[in-house]
Amino acid sequence: MPTYTPPLRDMQFVLHEVFRVTEEFKAIPRHAEVDADTVNAVLEEAGKFAAGVAFPLNMSGDEEGCTLDKATHEVTTPKGFKEAYAQYVEGGWAALSCEPEYGGQGLPFVLNQCLYEMLNSANQAWTMYPGLSHGAYEALHAHGTEEQKKLYLPKLTSGEWTGTMCLTEPHCGTDLGLLRTKAEPVAGAPEGTYKITGNKIFISAGEHDFTENIVHLVLARLPDAPKGSKGISLFVVPKYNVNADGSIGERNPIYCTGLEHKMGIHGNATAQISIDGAIGTLVGQPHKGLQAMFVMMNAARLGVGNQSLGLTEVAFQNALAYAKDRIQMRSLSGTKAKDKEADPIIVHPDVRKMLLTAKAYAEGARALQIYCTLLLDKAHSHPDEKVRKDSDELVALLTPIVKAFITDNGHISTNACMQVFGGHGFIKEWGMEQFVRDNRINMIYEGTNTVQSLDLLGRKILGNNGATLKKFGKLVGKLVEEEGVNEKMAEFINPIAYLGDQMTKFTTEIGFKGFQNPDEVGAAAVDYLRVAGHLVFGYMFARMAQVALREIAAGNTDPFYQAKLQTARFYFAKLFPETATLMRTARTGAKPLMDTDAALA
Amino acid sequence: MPTYTPPLRDMQFVLHEVFRVTEEFKAIPRHAEVDADTVNAVLEEAGKFAAGVAFPLNMSGDEEGCTLDKATHEVTTPKGFKEAYAQYVEGGWAALSCEPEYGGQGLPFVLNQCLYEMLNSANQAWTMYPGLSHGAYEALHAHGTEEQKKLYLPKLTSGEWTGTMCLTEPHCGTDLGLLRTKAEPVAGAPEGTYKITGNKIFISAGEHDFTENIVHLVLARLPDAPKGSKGISLFVVPKYNVNADGSIGERNPIYCTGLEHKMGIHGNATAQISIDGAIGTLVGQPHKGLQAMFVMMNAARLGVGNQSLGLTEVAFQNALAYAKDRIQMRSLSGTKAKDKEADPIIVHPDVRKMLLTAKAYAEGARALQIYCTLLLDKAHSHPDEKVRKDSDELVALLTPIVKAFITDNGHISTNACMQVFGGHGFIKEWGMEQFVRDNRINMIYEGTNTVQSLDLLGRKILGNNGATLKKFGKLVGKLVEEEGVNEKMAEFINPIAYLGDQMTKFTTEIGFKGFQNPDEVGAAAVDYLRVAGHLVFGYMFARMAQVALREIAAGNTDPFYQAKLQTARFYFAKLFPETATLMRTARTGAKPLMDTDAALA
Repeated sequence: MPTYTPPLRDMQFVLHEVFRVTEEFKAIPRHAEVDADTVNAVLEEAGKFAAGVAFPLNMSGDEEGCTLDKATHEVTTPKGFKEAYAQYVEGGWAALSCEPEYGGQGLPFVLNQCLYEMLNSANQAWTMYPGLSHGAYEALHAHGTEEQKKLYLPKLTSGEWTGTMCLTEPHCGTDLGLLRTKAEPVAGAPEGTYKITGNKIFISAGEHDFTENIVHLVLARLPDAPKGSKGISLFVVPKYNVNADGSIGERNPIYCTGLEHKMGIHGNATAQISIDGAIGTLVGQPHKGLQAMFVMMNAARLGVGNQSLGLTEVAFQNALAYAKDRIQMRSLSGTKAKDKEADPIIVHPDVRKMLLTAKAYAEGARALQIYCTLLLDKAHSHPDEKVRKDSDELVALLTPIVKAFITDNGHISTNACMQVFGGHGFIKEWGMEQFVRDNRINMIYEGTNTVQSLDLLGRKILGNNGATLKKFGKLVGKLVEEEGVNEKMAEFINPIAYLGDQMTKFTTEIGFKGFQNPDEVGAAAVDYLRVAGHLVFGYMFARMAQVALREIAAGNTDPFYQAKLQTARFYFAKLFPETATLMRTARTGAKPLMDTDAALA
Repeated sequence: MPTYTPPLRDMQFVLHEVFRVTEEFKAIPRHAEVDADTVNAVLEEAGKFAAGVAFPLNMSGDEEGCTLDKATHEVTTPKGFKEAYAQYVEGGWAALSCEPEYGGQGLPFVLNQCLYEMLNSANQAWTMYPGLSHGAYEALHAHGTEEQKKLYLPKLTSGEWTGTMCLTEPHCGTDLGLLRTKAEPVAGAPEGTYKITGNKIFISAGEHDFTENIVHLVLARLPDAPKGSKGISLFVVPKYNVNADGSIGERNPIYCTGLEHKMGIHGNATAQISIDGAIGTLVGQPHKGLQAMFVMMNAARLGVGNQSLGLTEVAFQNALAYAKDRIQMRSLSGTKAKDKEADPIIVHPDVRKMLLTAKAYAEGARALQIYCTLLLDKAHSHPDEKVRKDSDELVALLTPIVKAFITDNGHISTNACMQVFGGHGFIKEWGMEQFVRDNRINMIYEGTNTVQSLDLLGRKILGNNGATLKKFGKLVGKLVEEEGVNEKMAEFINPIAYLGDQMTKFTTEIGFKGFQNPDEVGAAAVDYLRVAGHLVFGYMFARMAQVALREIAAGNTDPFYQAKLQTARFYFAKLFPETATLMRTARTGAKPLMDTDAALA
């Protein structure tokens, strides 16, 4: 059976030592009082919930899965899931970073980020039930009418109700412009009231037994909607209608008609939803639903990166423990454990490489996720408009990298950690193969990783001629300037300075080729995103190494700082050089892919 | 539901056009009469069995799994498995390349290779039941006494009985030197008869309801055995004792006491086996069991590569069909399917890249597997001793590459093909996620891929100062010489000529560093194996391109040859350049892995 220890020290390192979040909070009036003690106390309690309540249900949830009663359309979640959720609500966790206006605690998003990292390590399938509510909360908060906010936000904040995102239909996932669900005005009803009809699939947490109501956010077309993605509107469609006084009304005909049988996240109900004339109200402007939904999508994409961070961390912890415990063969460089029949497998270089791969990808991801959520805090609440705008642009640039790079790395890492277990990794009882299976969806949902790469290269970078990329480049440049003369930092600074320069040229090249043939952008995008990911991770590792070197120079003998340096060195030696191949393959362009009609006949 | 079409044309291309197997057969007296018609007829019938009988049971076998009756120790396999096996035996497939002396058909191993590629595409879990028999057959054939051969080989040949390999124990897999199962002489019994006691785990096809008897080959220690791997002996321990006349005797106390719950290959019974004083007879010399077992292991390692080849091929076929059928978004370079609401996703460059990755890895693997099995045919049956020896050495060198490179590529490919399906890839009914799960064990069993890399670099290459590698280098050199002035071949020849030169230097470098610090070998081995894999695949693609170019030059307008060129071009543009990073990371050496005690504390 796997174990999980919340990585509190690692989170605190990134929060307090690398990004000095409480100093940032001081510049944000609503968070000015959030001090290190508050942060640490929240993390500690969050860790207790994750490790003590959510984690013990992870394997049993996978084993049991969810069941649908086809007669009542009600779903039963795995044993213990409902009770854990009740504890979560009671603990106030759902409200952590929601607005005080609706009953929230109004704490910074970075705290929610760390809470969710731990919940995802503990139990991704369970965590998706409360996790999906956040998207619904944010879309309603940003685009809802006062009445919608009054009706739904307090219940979503407290966790009394949960939310969903109903986008996908059987014939369309990526291409929402094709969607067919219809919304018709209801004669005699208040303005903005519609009757919704259609079929949705792949609705995560789409039905369950946690709460008395579920708030579905549904994309549909109005009768006069233009074709394609410009004719989609967003509606809030509760499972039970809500009376004006907030009490529960009649059952709305929005039914779970099937549950998917999936490779992983068995504990989460992935629902097929039939909407048979359910009553919903319009959220935001008609035909502008996709924009409104993107508020949810962007938050969700950061959340998906966080899922893989969580799985990478827990997989690493277990593989490390196994590698120290399992004895097998002797070290190539001579016996290490003379008192034992064989050496622990951690003596073998490649076992260390697999472990360090996961460790480095977890630590890089943690730094980046916290960095991005801090940007979100600034984008939402900083008093200076320019800071808000800059933060917003930077997080928009980084979002596809977070989503695709961290989930791909999660795939590499969970598989490496499973491999450390040899044959035992393939056996369910060790828990490692579940991490691999659960992680696998993260590369797909909320926009496949290919879609993320097109978003990054096509929209976020070439779409504004590299202006936002330059802003990130300036951060790298600033670090290079600060540390350029520090010999001890050279091993961490030189690779990113060099890659930064290469990327500038590389981006111009692709932009030029893409101008002549847009397929060149599609052909380079996936490689490009991974290069960008390494530039960003390289920057994070350099920032972490900078702190570690300073502490060591100041006489701090805590081996924690040596560990940070060792991990950063490993990262630059063994993972970062992947960029050499990626730039080479990207440069071979679209021709070897597109001139293949005979091969793909 | 997935589909499968046996790739007969592709196999015939490699057999007849690239390696001209029937010409090779002419030099081998026992196969001299095997002509192209015979080969093609066998392939066609084999394809019918694979696609028509084994494939329809693949998903149901995964869903049902095996069940153990703890009272009787009997295992029930998934519905239809037993009947499919009966058909297999009746069709004579078990006997295909076994010796006529024991009732076999005596056909070349290359035919068995192609049969098994198709069976693995169709149903890896089912295929492992007959597949394991081959190893038992070969170990008994090479090391058994006349009596053992007489008792067991005819039944293994016909398929009336199956075989297993009982190596792993709970505390030892890779490190068989630690094994504890005991063998004690039985007083009064004929010489070579022992009572075996111990516990084995992870025994594939270890118990089932296909046959009335199962022939277990078991590693155990004699009372006077030296410690470690030099004190292990091999025994044949049948489920039912076999009387001298070949009839079934008493039940031997070798019992299945549990079945593993695994990530994949659910249809195969992975048995925990308790041996409670079962009667066995010694195979080969006392304390030389590991060497005898390696006869099986080497064959099994080629077989594992073949499993991933099979899964890569079937995953590719289904992803290709889906990519042509599924419409979603428009091509970046302008609408392609004007009559449809959206373009088929095959227009997108990255979708093509995922498809072509699987296609190239399947075609490279098929060429290499057939090449190796042809070497096996020569090693076993060629009249010229030098040819036998050279073939044997070359196949020994290539075996760890086949095992590790092809299974890692299978992981990349099945995941890429699953990704083509977007969200549907994660849903069981599409069948793609099963290919990923089934493939995952191939990277682990029969020696993890890390163990393979140490076998390649440490034993096969540095162990004889690169002598065998030079033999392969000569083949590359011969091709370069043949085609060096052919401009059309330059794009296929130049990369391998260049990489071949680099590898020579690279090998010397590692050898030198490893001499000072053996951990340097362990640190470089995995990267090294992948570089070697690309050199070998590059050679295979150059050979295939050579044939295609000749046909095109001769006026052959079959688009099949254009397809071969396109796939080879894709391979050299998008996959082969991985070697740039691998050599770079290998060169960073052991230090970033070994100087990490704080990081891995």
